[in-house]
Amino acid sequence: MNDEPLNSEPLVYLEDVSVGQRFVTGSHVLDAEQIKAFAAQFDPQPFHLDADAAKSTIFGGLVASGWHTAAITMRLLVESGLHLAGGVIGLGATLKWPRPVRPGDVLTVHGEVREITRSRSSPDRGTMQLSAETRNQNGEVVQTFVSTVLLRRRRLAN
Amino acid sequence: MNDEPLNSEPLVYLEDVSVGQRFVTGSHVLDAEQIKAFAAQFDPQPFHLDADAAKSTIFGGLVASGWHTAAITMRLLVESGLHLAGGVIGLGATLKWPRPVRPGDVLTVHGEVREITRSRSSPDRGTMQLSAETRNQNGEVVQTFVSTVLLRRRRLAN
Repeated sequence: MNDEPLNSEPLVYLEDVSVGQRFVTGSHVLDAEQIKAFAAQFDPQPFHLDADAAKSTIFGGLVASGWHTAAITMRLLVESGLHLAGGVIGLGATLKWPRPVRPGDVLTVHGEVREITRSRSSPDRGTMQLSAETRNQNGEVVQTFVSTVLLRRRRLAN
Repeated sequence: MNDEPLNSEPLVYLEDVSVGQRFVTGSHVLDAEQIKAFAAQFDPQPFHLDADAAKSTIFGGLVASGWHTAAITMRLLVESGLHLAGGVIGLGATLKWPRPVRPGDVLTVHGEVREITRSRSSPDRGTMQLSAETRNQNGEVVQTFVSTVLLRRRRLAN
């Protein structure tokens, strides 16, 4: 895991983000031990647990659980994505895993703000639609992710 | 593909599932230690890491990361959901977290087969749309989940 401290940048409020805004997180190096440890706890299937057993599966070798990729993506977003006031809180997400993640892959998240919505009922907050591609060291997309994320407002609406 | 069963139930192929088919998994008891351990690794935010710090957040107390709930849901599906031939392999998923998961919650997954599609290009396989609600001990839905999941066919198509 990336041991860098949570960043000390100023907190980001709804007023600070804009549609089309992009950012890139730090990177995470994934190895076979991490893949197997996550799988043993949450996704105990041969293609995530054992390199030999994985050879005879549809993947042809050890691959990370998609939920592991999603969890690493979250870690990267929390540590080095937008430093949101109130935290990074998603109400839901749509994920796709177009390509497997294998031992030795280096994952980086490329984020983009797609849409910003001010809450009518709660003038102190809103949401943004965040799109995030998780890419490997070859620039190939291993996960696409769209999530509705809470935003706090810096000032109350009139 | 690996046909080794994780348990002794017969493997489930495309021909064995039907639209509307329902199942219920076993349960998982979540405690504060698990919540904090997952968060430290993948979602290091105050409302997932520290009960005291969590009091002053939007959640008012310690809550599990949504990715933790998703990972537990996967574990329950793999261990006690449909015992799919070739394994439980999702191509993507749509998740919503309508209600927080708190220490002491007992999670159970209620699954339903929504749609079955035979592949035209690969006659040995297809997909199903799997809908899964993760519910707590009070029957409240803490996560909804819809995923496109691979199915193997028992016989080749003509």
